[in-house]
Amino acid sequence: MHFEILYQSSKSKARVGRIHTPHGIIQTPGFVAVGTNGTIKSLSTDLVEKIGLELMFCNTYHLLLQPGTDVVREAGGLHSFMNRSMPLITDSGGFQVFSLAYGSVHDELKSRGKKKGDGSVLKITEDGVLFRSYRDGSKVLLTPETSVQAQKDLGADIIIPFDELPPYHIGEEALKFSLARTHRWELRSLAAHLKEPKRQAMYGVIHGGIDQSLRRLSCETLTKEPFDGFAIGGSVGKNRQELLDLISFTRPMLPDDKPNHLLGIGDLPSLHELIPLGIDTFDSSYPTKAARHGFLFTKTGGLKILQTCHRRLFVPIEPGCTCPTCQTTSLAYLHHLFKAKELTAYSLATIHNLHFMVRTMEEIRKNICEDRL
Amino acid sequence: MHFEILYQSSKSKARVGRIHTPHGIIQTPGFVAVGTNGTIKSLSTDLVEKIGLELMFCNTYHLLLQPGTDVVREAGGLHSFMNRSMPLITDSGGFQVFSLAYGSVHDELKSRGKKKGDGSVLKITEDGVLFRSYRDGSKVLLTPETSVQAQKDLGADIIIPFDELPPYHIGEEALKFSLARTHRWELRSLAAHLKEPKRQAMYGVIHGGIDQSLRRLSCETLTKEPFDGFAIGGSVGKNRQELLDLISFTRPMLPDDKPNHLLGIGDLPSLHELIPLGIDTFDSSYPTKAARHGFLFTKTGGLKILQTCHRRLFVPIEPGCTCPTCQTTSLAYLHHLFKAKELTAYSLATIHNLHFMVRTMEEIRKNICEDRL
Repeated sequence: MHFEILYQSSKSKARVGRIHTPHGIIQTPGFVAVGTNGTIKSLSTDLVEKIGLELMFCNTYHLLLQPGTDVVREAGGLHSFMNRSMPLITDSGGFQVFSLAYGSVHDELKSRGKKKGDGSVLKITEDGVLFRSYRDGSKVLLTPETSVQAQKDLGADIIIPFDELPPYHIGEEALKFSLARTHRWELRSLAAHLKEPKRQAMYGVIHGGIDQSLRRLSCETLTKEPFDGFAIGGSVGKNRQELLDLISFTRPMLPDDKPNHLLGIGDLPSLHELIPLGIDTFDSSYPTKAARHGFLFTKTGGLKILQTCHRRLFVPIEPGCTCPTCQTTSLAYLHHLFKAKELTAYSLATIHNLHFMVRTMEEIRKNICEDRL
Repeated sequence: MHFEILYQSSKSKARVGRIHTPHGIIQTPGFVAVGTNGTIKSLSTDLVEKIGLELMFCNTYHLLLQPGTDVVREAGGLHSFMNRSMPLITDSGGFQVFSLAYGSVHDELKSRGKKKGDGSVLKITEDGVLFRSYRDGSKVLLTPETSVQAQKDLGADIIIPFDELPPYHIGEEALKFSLARTHRWELRSLAAHLKEPKRQAMYGVIHGGIDQSLRRLSCETLTKEPFDGFAIGGSVGKNRQELLDLISFTRPMLPDDKPNHLLGIGDLPSLHELIPLGIDTFDSSYPTKAARHGFLFTKTGGLKILQTCHRRLFVPIEPGCTCPTCQTTSLAYLHHLFKAKELTAYSLATIHNLHFMVRTMEEIRKNICEDRL
């Protein structure tokens, strides 16, 4: 992997760059869509490439349990399995496994830490996490080494070391303990990766929750190691202000000559504030999930297609939009398909929202280069 | 509409023809896919055209209740609403309304006539049928005139007169009464249509259940009228033998110079036996429904993609198949997507099965022309 900075804004930390991978270039700042099971929900691989989505995020946890990373390896890797020619990134599985243990971040924030997992995590030790597969009840041990092996089998262009996702509501001592173990796990992951790099890049994941001294410790510890880039993970705040404070503080401690990625954030208002702080890529399932719930992105914010006001609007979602949906489909037809709960509706909406994200990032890159951001 | 016979088999009643419509040619024998709500489930309109599906069947009953045929008329008709450039056919709504009254044919056959409707049909009179909309509870009156008006609003190339679908388990007198009323309704439909033909063609629907003398009466009554073609409807038997007996008896009573259509039959074994009897077109939701349930058509019959044997098969559904799915997707990937219940699976499977039907009909036409059928 090779990272090239094309333009550094004179007005902010924003920069325009290119990440060169074995499967082509990822332009930054760039949006990364989530295709958990090796598909963007409701879209075929060729359509996703046609929209121009340069980097796609798949989840090792899900692929490990179904179809099994051994199956994907036999297929020649995830690119070959899903017939994707463009870059892929996989995570370590840690996020999902610890969501099972502590409840999802969302549940946990809502319940103020009272909600726990569903019991499928059996044991968390220095070695790793033992959990029960939701598919067949078998026991699965996820460690830094097995996570990296799974990601070698998947063969994504960018991979992530095994880490703990501690809950947002966690005591100071517990968070310190978690961070130290995460650092040990990340170094074990890096060692396992470097034994057989296979042209994959590995991003270290900065943790420390919303504790600034721990975030600093994490940056100091991990940026000394030969990671190819850095992701910011863990709890990044319970609202946008906490997030912005955290990134403003953390981002300057990351090396400028390596790409960085913010895990799990992809709403447009956040992107517009985070890019000037120097964030390169973002992943989120929000644009695709919103699409399936009938929320369609527009330059003025978005619209809820199920609202009756769209029933007789024989115009595209957004005038001038060049996405395949807007080229062929009216708001009235989409409204009808959503009302009739037709599967076609979900594809058409997903195409539009993803295309919108791709075009928005294009515009942002242009604005940076013209010093308008 | 203009019907042209290109080749009449010397070995059977099979023939190859072309139906010319305002939206292009329908080659016969031809398979007609069902897109109830103005979409083939899980596919975009452009993909359906790309597959080469020349005629698509939409249901007036569903479109009347959602989005409303007035909305479709305002859009400029169904072609414009759904952005389809190729031919469409709509039914009268009678089939669905009488399924509400008597239970579906399938339910009724299974229950031997004991299962009745759900009470949403309020009144059946000489005028027509009064029923309650499942969407908003409003009362809707479907008569020959309102059905034709709805189909004028939709603007399909081929439309169907309002008819009764009597239950399979019906007494002789009741069937006679139903048939006589259906004939009166069809003539009223034809009169309403001919007041304002709008370049649409209307097929008369032959009824009479499995009673040969009533089928003869229906053919004699309707073939005297200026219908553009004929559909065979009503109960066509409870198994394939009854169906074949019925078509062998009925088809010769239809004029050879007009196209005919068999309503609601589309399984391949039946098609292979019905085409030599001289049937031109067939509609069925079976290929698309089977696809969504993971049954994929092949030349040797088909396969159930969810079976574990496909887990590691990195080959297309059928070697040599030129469909977009087989060009890009392996059995193993499809198996995985079905296991993971990904929406993408349903589109990929539907594409293959529809393409299979289109190609099968192409081969059948070729075989007829070469006197091999």
